[in-house]
Amino acid sequence: MRIGAIEAGGTKFVCGIGNELGTIEDRVSFPTEHPERTLSSIIAYFEDKQVEAIGIGTFGPIDINPASSTYGFVTTTPKPGWSGFDFLGTMKQAFDLPFGWDTDVNAAAYGEAAWGAAKGLDSCVYYTVGTGIGVGVYAEGKLVHGLVHPEGGHILVRRHKDDTFLGNCPYHGDCLEGMASGPAIEQRWKVKGNELSTAHSAWEMEAYYIAQAITSTILLLSPKKVILGGGVMQQKQLFPLIRAEVQRHLNGYVSSCMIMGAIETYIVPPGLGDNAGLCGALALGLAAVNQAKG
Amino acid sequence: MRIGAIEAGGTKFVCGIGNELGTIEDRVSFPTEHPERTLSSIIAYFEDKQVEAIGIGTFGPIDINPASSTYGFVTTTPKPGWSGFDFLGTMKQAFDLPFGWDTDVNAAAYGEAAWGAAKGLDSCVYYTVGTGIGVGVYAEGKLVHGLVHPEGGHILVRRHKDDTFLGNCPYHGDCLEGMASGPAIEQRWKVKGNELSTAHSAWEMEAYYIAQAITSTILLLSPKKVILGGGVMQQKQLFPLIRAEVQRHLNGYVSSCMIMGAIETYIVPPGLGDNAGLCGALALGLAAVNQAKG
Repeated sequence: MRIGAIEAGGTKFVCGIGNELGTIEDRVSFPTEHPERTLSSIIAYFEDKQVEAIGIGTFGPIDINPASSTYGFVTTTPKPGWSGFDFLGTMKQAFDLPFGWDTDVNAAAYGEAAWGAAKGLDSCVYYTVGTGIGVGVYAEGKLVHGLVHPEGGHILVRRHKDDTFLGNCPYHGDCLEGMASGPAIEQRWKVKGNELSTAHSAWEMEAYYIAQAITSTILLLSPKKVILGGGVMQQKQLFPLIRAEVQRHLNGYVSSCMIMGAIETYIVPPGLGDNAGLCGALALGLAAVNQAKG
Repeated sequence: MRIGAIEAGGTKFVCGIGNELGTIEDRVSFPTEHPERTLSSIIAYFEDKQVEAIGIGTFGPIDINPASSTYGFVTTTPKPGWSGFDFLGTMKQAFDLPFGWDTDVNAAAYGEAAWGAAKGLDSCVYYTVGTGIGVGVYAEGKLVHGLVHPEGGHILVRRHKDDTFLGNCPYHGDCLEGMASGPAIEQRWKVKGNELSTAHSAWEMEAYYIAQAITSTILLLSPKKVILGGGVMQQKQLFPLIRAEVQRHLNGYVSSCMIMGAIETYIVPPGLGDNAGLCGALALGLAAVNQAKG
């Protein structure tokens, strides 16, 4: 099979061709510009690729409700030209193919469940911690959409006792994203995260916030795997700090040997590494073609 | 159709017979005693009822993983005799029938989706606020189980600025249950909740805690309906306080007209009233018989 995949991000679009084994056979990337311009490049790329379907995992917020009149649109974003843009419709006009369409983080969760850290499991949660914080939710073998779609990056957290930073989320101030995104780290410590030493107390504070969100996620959803990706999670020293903090928060309440005794296999980096997003889009495309075939 | 239903609670077991329309045709109740004794009463009740299946929604924690060697067991509970008791297996020995088996709160969510406040929707979250706090999660047309099962009653909350009560959860101190259960209200104010006037500031504080949990639930799961039941929610003045507080927390971030403009139809009491639990068990039994029929 030949499936097209689009990982649509705020700064770049990564497009590729892959197969049902999750192998990426070709890959290109385009800067995120005005939507017409970006999509022209993408359409030109796929024109001679003879794919059976295209999966799109995109930045948002987006409309993923098939019953909605604005299904397939980017909804409200400060990115020039993208607010109210009919992303999926524009692609469908160019290609008469089955399309997969979901958020970038749901796509990543789906890709990880297909071929990555959650392979063979019917649930996982994917957190990306970077410029923003996003959460993809895969539960009981399905991506969770609901009323709009999960926006777990904005979950409420308790302030760290030593933290004087007010938080930089324009909506909530000191929600998770406001306290723990890459820009929040930079504003709090006046240097970029990757310029802080791995032993800096910044990471213990960062782990404190991320662990709270994971604790609430475990309590509400009981996922079979928690996957942490994104630029900030390149700081590998965060993983043991987060795991210890989650165990401390749960305090033995959720009696699962995964959490009590094997947490290093439960809270993990993406199995697909930097391919999580593109493989996720590929998995969405694959699901679309399988659904179209009945 | 004739389906048996068991709502197994910490103080009493309610058993009934119902049909595929959600109508309860008979109902009895037994005190929760030592498990052998309680189950003898239940087995005697169903013996001549000629039901096609039995659904059980029970207090827990319980094992709901069909692949587990202790599937159908109550796991760890301080209730004498129940810890490690094979509840489902005991019932199966008595009746060669399809059985539905889930937590009391998942059952209630399922019943509400079948015949109650979330009828026709493919997702809802059911909170019960009483002696403890429990959460049932129904997403994308399925009850969420995951690694263990949701335990959202213990989600982390921020302390109210005027609250000096330390919280009474033996595991987490000031988690949601530790701050907002019926016993927490009583310990904080030194009187039972139903002896406090409806204008007492206790209710604003209670709403503050419950609203935080709902806010995090909306951000993580985006449910199509939030249903609040249990003894504490008999205090109807809580609903407008909770709705206002959820809107304040979200601050316009989740742009859904349900949340922005029609929240009184989004955060609601159980449509099935006091029957939510028993109807939920009935819905589980119905699903079991339908699954058995293929």
